[in-house]
Amino acid sequence: MASKKTQEPEIRSWSDLQTSDARWVALKKIDFIDQTGTPRSWEVAVRKTTSSSGVDAVAIGNILVHPSKPPSTMLVIQYRPPLGKYTVEWPAGLIDEGETAEQAAVREMKEETGYEGRILETSPAVSSDPGLTNATLQLVMMEVKLKADEPMPEQRLDDGELIERVVVPLNELYDRLLKWSQDDKYMVAGKLFYFAAGMNFAKSSGYV
Amino acid sequence: MASKKTQEPEIRSWSDLQTSDARWVALKKIDFIDQTGTPRSWEVAVRKTTSSSGVDAVAIGNILVHPSKPPSTMLVIQYRPPLGKYTVEWPAGLIDEGETAEQAAVREMKEETGYEGRILETSPAVSSDPGLTNATLQLVMMEVKLKADEPMPEQRLDDGELIERVVVPLNELYDRLLKWSQDDKYMVAGKLFYFAAGMNFAKSSGYV
Repeated sequence: MASKKTQEPEIRSWSDLQTSDARWVALKKIDFIDQTGTPRSWEVAVRKTTSSSGVDAVAIGNILVHPSKPPSTMLVIQYRPPLGKYTVEWPAGLIDEGETAEQAAVREMKEETGYEGRILETSPAVSSDPGLTNATLQLVMMEVKLKADEPMPEQRLDDGELIERVVVPLNELYDRLLKWSQDDKYMVAGKLFYFAAGMNFAKSSGYV
Repeated sequence: MASKKTQEPEIRSWSDLQTSDARWVALKKIDFIDQTGTPRSWEVAVRKTTSSSGVDAVAIGNILVHPSKPPSTMLVIQYRPPLGKYTVEWPAGLIDEGETAEQAAVREMKEETGYEGRILETSPAVSSDPGLTNATLQLVMMEVKLKADEPMPEQRLDDGELIERVVVPLNELYDRLLKWSQDDKYMVAGKLFYFAAGMNFAKSSGYV
């Protein structure tokens, strides 16, 4: 059961963490020979949780289809301590051991939004931030068909999770993300922003 | 001057790296009070290079406009040791101390592709991977006008940098990224993939 919000989150301290003391992440040094034959090294941040599928995470590019409302998407807003802000993202999560990307997408969508949907397409594994980390993810596009008077379902959050849901019409998505970005309390997740920017570019740039 | 390729890169070893021994990245532990009033902690990977602007990096969403060829974009392919693969990305780089995102975009575009262009739009700072890191970036959209018989300009790479340039028509971008992803030697950068997926979605889904 999700917990109730009683206060704004508050950062108490940032302290150095050694790899040997970390539970979820680690730093690694890669020694390699580059294309010119020169020995070099690279520092990388690694998740300790990568599942045996080799892919770390899924994000759910969801489309809510309603009989009378415009096609929309459900975004999730949650406090992210690394940024000290609330991030605006698509539902997402780590792939559990033994899960496929599709199974993880269905599970995370249900947990974070309450909705079940039909998978339209699963992306190949892509790199989250190739200069910094070996973390990878897959984007699962999912269609959720809503009935006319369907109430928003219950979330199934873990204890301590507090995730706000916001429905945004797809044709307003880019402008809404820009607007959130103007408020210092929020930051938009880069990949969601790029998807919206790509949609907006296709519709309004005149190039494609 | 860029160096010549003489061999395929080769990973020699991955070893644990302690934060106290790392030059470019660090792990931090954040102690915070969550929304329910409960003390919690979060482990985060941090770049040691974040400029005083507070934003780590820029990526250049470039559009090559040619008098007779279709609107295209220049992608860069480089070996990324964290993934042990060649990544397909938009030109990008860290923002240097004292630079604006626009200045960094012009500089990186020139270094990695040789081209100079006109900035169309600069995104707000967005989060690279909000669960893992505090790293942020800005997407700078840039238009490069080409003349009919203009040869591809020289890159201005640092010694040891080896970056291949590939021009892809915008209306083929999504399919080309999917094709690269089928080859185990390559991985597409997530944000570029999302932009292309957003363009493709806007054009072909029927929802927007």
